[in-house]
Amino acid sequence: MNYQPINLNEKFSLFEEQWKPKVIAELNNYQFKIAKIKGDFIWHSHSDTDEAFIVINGRLRIDFRDGSVTIDQGEMFIVPKGVEHKPYAEKEVQLMLIEPRGVKNTGDEAVNEITAENNVWI
Amino acid sequence: MNYQPINLNEKFSLFEEQWKPKVIAELNNYQFKIAKIKGDFIWHSHSDTDEAFIVINGRLRIDFRDGSVTIDQGEMFIVPKGVEHKPYAEKEVQLMLIEPRGVKNTGDEAVNEITAENNVWI
Repeated sequence: MNYQPINLNEKFSLFEEQWKPKVIAELNNYQFKIAKIKGDFIWHSHSDTDEAFIVINGRLRIDFRDGSVTIDQGEMFIVPKGVEHKPYAEKEVQLMLIEPRGVKNTGDEAVNEITAENNVWI
Repeated sequence: MNYQPINLNEKFSLFEEQWKPKVIAELNNYQFKIAKIKGDFIWHSHSDTDEAFIVINGRLRIDFRDGSVTIDQGEMFIVPKGVEHKPYAEKEVQLMLIEPRGVKNTGDEAVNEITAENNVWI
């Protein structure tokens, strides 16, 4: 039997909305999510988990209270737990997130209008 | 302060040896490892964890007892825990693995001459 790999660009072609992470795979209790983002997100942190960002297409900047990191295609960065951060993209960036199942995109902030629905598979 | 992203191709340029995964990042108790592989590995499984394969450059085939999956650049696959598998690459492939800290490359097989040293950072 032929098993099918997960093709990231194919998955990105299936949706256009921004800031709404979609789950594409699970590894134990961790999820791989892809998202398209453009513009500024809100300041937030995740008090109980690190968060991995891998840029697939484009350029992402993550601002911290004491600086920033610019992540280009083929690059990744781990935001340590508890660290306040604010993702930003001048042009649309396509990225992959890896974090435990159940983590909210807005972290420890109260649920608000930009909190994305969780566990949406594509 | 400017934080530095992890550039995957830059990391691959730092070593030539095959079949020896190098750790490039940690996410909670999980590790991101990169490896160059060519040829046939041994049949093995990991009884207590899934294993993520992301192909960065080249083409990887993973054989299972009942079939196989071919994973090209920009594609990924999760091998479920307990499933016997054998990675194979006709030409050298550069890939990223994600799995809990401490997982041996040869899984549940007894340590042998192809068991790689663990927790080697690059």
